[in-house]
Amino acid sequence: MEHHFKNLYNRSNFVLTRNKISVEGLLSILDKFVLKSNINSNFFINDVSSLDNYKKNSLLFIDKEIIPSKINFSEICLITSNEEVYKKYLKENIFLVSNFNESFRNIINFMYIHEDSSDFKDEFSTINGSHISKYSSIQKSSVIQKNCVIGRGVEIGKNCIIKNNSVIKNAIIKDNVIIGDNTTIGSTGFGFDLKSPGATNIIPQIGIVYIDENTHIGSNCTIDRGKIDFTHIGKNCMIDNLVHIAHNVILGDNACLAAQSGISGSTLIGKNLISGGQSGYAGHIKIGDNVIVAGKSGVTKNIKDNSTIAGFPAIDIKEWKKLIIKQKKNGHK
Amino acid sequence: MEHHFKNLYNRSNFVLTRNKISVEGLLSILDKFVLKSNINSNFFINDVSSLDNYKKNSLLFIDKEIIPSKINFSEICLITSNEEVYKKYLKENIFLVSNFNESFRNIINFMYIHEDSSDFKDEFSTINGSHISKYSSIQKSSVIQKNCVIGRGVEIGKNCIIKNNSVIKNAIIKDNVIIGDNTTIGSTGFGFDLKSPGATNIIPQIGIVYIDENTHIGSNCTIDRGKIDFTHIGKNCMIDNLVHIAHNVILGDNACLAAQSGISGSTLIGKNLISGGQSGYAGHIKIGDNVIVAGKSGVTKNIKDNSTIAGFPAIDIKEWKKLIIKQKKNGHK
Amino acid sequence: MEHHFKNLYNRSNFVLTRNKISVEGLLSILDKFVLKSNINSNFFINDVSSLDNYKKNSLLFIDKEIIPSKINFSEICLITSNEEVYKKYLKENIFLVSNFNESFRNIINFMYIHEDSSDFKDEFSTINGSHISKYSSIQKSSVIQKNCVIGRGVEIGKNCIIKNNSVIKNAIIKDNVIIGDNTTIGSTGFGFDLKSPGATNIIPQIGIVYIDENTHIGSNCTIDRGKIDFTHIGKNCMIDNLVHIAHNVILGDNACLAAQSGISGSTLIGKNLISGGQSGYAGHIKIGDNVIVAGKSGVTKNIKDNSTIAGFPAIDIKEWKKLIIKQKKNGHK
Repeated sequence: MEHHFKNLYNRSNFVLTRNKISVEGLLSILDKFVLKSNINSNFFINDVSSLDNYKKNSLLFIDKEIIPSKINFSEICLITSNEEVYKKYLKENIFLVSNFNESFRNIINFMYIHEDSSDFKDEFSTINGSHISKYSSIQKSSVIQKNCVIGRGVEIGKNCIIKNNSVIKNAIIKDNVIIGDNTTIGSTGFGFDLKSPGATNIIPQIGIVYIDENTHIGSNCTIDRGKIDFTHIGKNCMIDNLVHIAHNVILGDNACLAAQSGISGSTLIGKNLISGGQSGYAGHIKIGDNVIVAGKSGVTKNIKDNSTIAGFPAIDIKEWKKLIIKQKKNGHK
Repeated sequence: MEHHFKNLYNRSNFVLTRNKISVEGLLSILDKFVLKSNINSNFFINDVSSLDNYKKNSLLFIDKEIIPSKINFSEICLITSNEEVYKKYLKENIFLVSNFNESFRNIINFMYIHEDSSDFKDEFSTINGSHISKYSSIQKSSVIQKNCVIGRGVEIGKNCIIKNNSVIKNAIIKDNVIIGDNTTIGSTGFGFDLKSPGATNIIPQIGIVYIDENTHIGSNCTIDRGKIDFTHIGKNCMIDNLVHIAHNVILGDNACLAAQSGISGSTLIGKNLISGGQSGYAGHIKIGDNVIVAGKSGVTKNIKDNSTIAGFPAIDIKEWKKLIIKQKKNGHK
Repeated sequence: MEHHFKNLYNRSNFVLTRNKISVEGLLSILDKFVLKSNINSNFFINDVSSLDNYKKNSLLFIDKEIIPSKINFSEICLITSNEEVYKKYLKENIFLVSNFNESFRNIINFMYIHEDSSDFKDEFSTINGSHISKYSSIQKSSVIQKNCVIGRGVEIGKNCIIKNNSVIKNAIIKDNVIIGDNTTIGSTGFGFDLKSPGATNIIPQIGIVYIDENTHIGSNCTIDRGKIDFTHIGKNCMIDNLVHIAHNVILGDNACLAAQSGISGSTLIGKNLISGGQSGYAGHIKIGDNVIVAGKSGVTKNIKDNSTIAGFPAIDIKEWKKLIIKQKKNGHK
């Protein structure tokens, strides 16, 4: 269930570079937040990346203790607010900061101009009733219906149908995909900093949505862009109306999600999911392959391959049915 | 609670005919799927129809055992994957096929060009900021606000208000109807074939949405077109925001559906429903007249007239209240 | 938790005056509904107002028994269908009517031309791909993206970003607010009269939505206008995608509402709410400050400050967790 989508896209197609950043620049931006640091002043910073998809010459923000051994620390610079992490890696390129979210926000907003920056720029042509960014790329065999907006960097493959009034930004869409009317792809995820709430303090979202081939997305859905990397929708998925998929979700191939379902941020879902209407998934959980989730379920924890679950919190469907019968009996006592 | 809406509309207003089909053509398309057949080679095929609304000279796809005796088999040709059905009607015009969904898909896609075909065509005029199909019909007293799309075949009656950014396709809308902003009417239903998943294998949807007079639909709702016939919204209905109504649903007159409710495919609902927010209805169930459903309920089975229900699975509200009290007591033990 | 937003806006910016109304006119409109009345024929009627925000020279519709003593009855005219209310205040300017909703509807529709009147008028300029009312006011530093509709009377403050395909009507939006794509602000609330259902009998909605500074609203959300006064979203709120907020809701500062949540009409919510995805709130309840609501909860009653709740009906989260464990044990018996 791990995902290996390295170098899937070029960030600079979607966000603009505001400033190049050096180690010195970093120290100056993080100024008041830096508690301790150890950094090779020659370290060269190109981008920000994530544990799942870390890149050479990038900043890696890690708030939790576990860091895989596969990282080559000479290639990256860690920024953490976790003392244990700092202790463990204090010989590497590393910063210990007092305010993790604010550090992230300040660095990203220094480096990039993203969609929620007031000076973000895009340029559109009006083609056949829709606004198409001059910096997007759409294969000729694909149809864009009316009143759509296709934003900067977007790539749309062959034989796609993008239905009316849909907004597609920060997204790569492969061949044979259908996107329903009034759907929003690539919007800003729910990245809020509860310590400093509000629109101007949003945790910047600079990733994309990747929709693999032959997937069908219904009407009035929302799929948020990844925070740093991507939200990934597999091949042959079948997503009904009014479905919400949050940032960093990985949805496996052949998923079938009925209407009004919602998947919270960073949840990983295996292949062949079948999920009933109005079901919900907590964030940061892992769902195996071939899982069936009954309608209106609330999935709160990791689920093994080949499970069939129901209820809230969702449990094995046989257990759930027993429970319902038991409750009914007890109600009659 | 049966519905009798025969000849409600002319399919050819909404979908284009790709090919006329003969018995020979049928045999050639179904080729590899036909297990057995008995067909009068002079049988003339005009359309596809459904059990609830079957038409002369049509193909009737039946997957289940029960077929009402009211069918005049000389008028239709049955296509089934069910051996029992085949045995029972083997003297009629009938095909036994190995792959029901794929047979349906292949036949429909041979006969019709529907919205999810890449060669579907419509022609629009831009009127007052909205895109209006040249093949639609809108009464003069109705108002279409900005950024709407009104598709091929759509009929809109008198004194309607279609609010901004709404998409209306494959629909007949009677007098005095209000449709809220950003709402999608007549989109493609959730017709997926789990055996061959994905956008290119979608089970074709060629029906319409029929909205009867004086109904009010809120903002950001989705109402899917019927698979073969129609999704029917009765008179005087009051539908709140973010409500989903799936294909083939029949919603009776005077229904009052609060926000974020969802009704799954082919569910039939009687008159005077009152349904609280975030309630959900399973597919293929029957809800009687004068039913009240508490908010957040999940209705999983047929419900009798005059019931008041709550919970998930929804039960009589008095039973549900007892259950809640009991649970609370047990929790304190 | 009371709100004091008097004179927050000028109604005439949003609705048009159809007719001035006098005491005589009132008697003539209410004609068949008036059971008893006592009215100073010199009483001058300017507007309709509500208990929470009553204004001099207004009509006040009160259906329930409790009326705060702070009202200066010489300044207003009460309209009630409640005999007890009438008895208590029969020496004041007061009408006892037989049909409360129809009286309200008839008076409002006589006095005002609102959005759901077929003769409502607005005038738009098409600016940069969006339709902007000539009667709206947008600060220059704010960005309106593509395919938006900004309606009559709308005020948008500084440094706002209104994303693509959003509809904003009947709303005042303060500085630094971000509104996501395909979102509808200021739509008509779910004001239905079950006795006379349907679009033409809708209970008129003539209030606005007020969104305070630095609030972020996601994609495909719906926020309904107040019935008479306003729906109020506080400062620094963080509202995710597909969220519904009904008419007359007051949402306190710093609220954080995850995707697919819904708040029913007239519910008052204190500061610093944190609310998980797919949670729902009944109407007319009061939620205190610093409340945390787990995902998929259904909040059915008033909640005290500093509570953490879960489940449906939502209870203290510790109790809920015990209940879940108990249920699991019982299920295994």
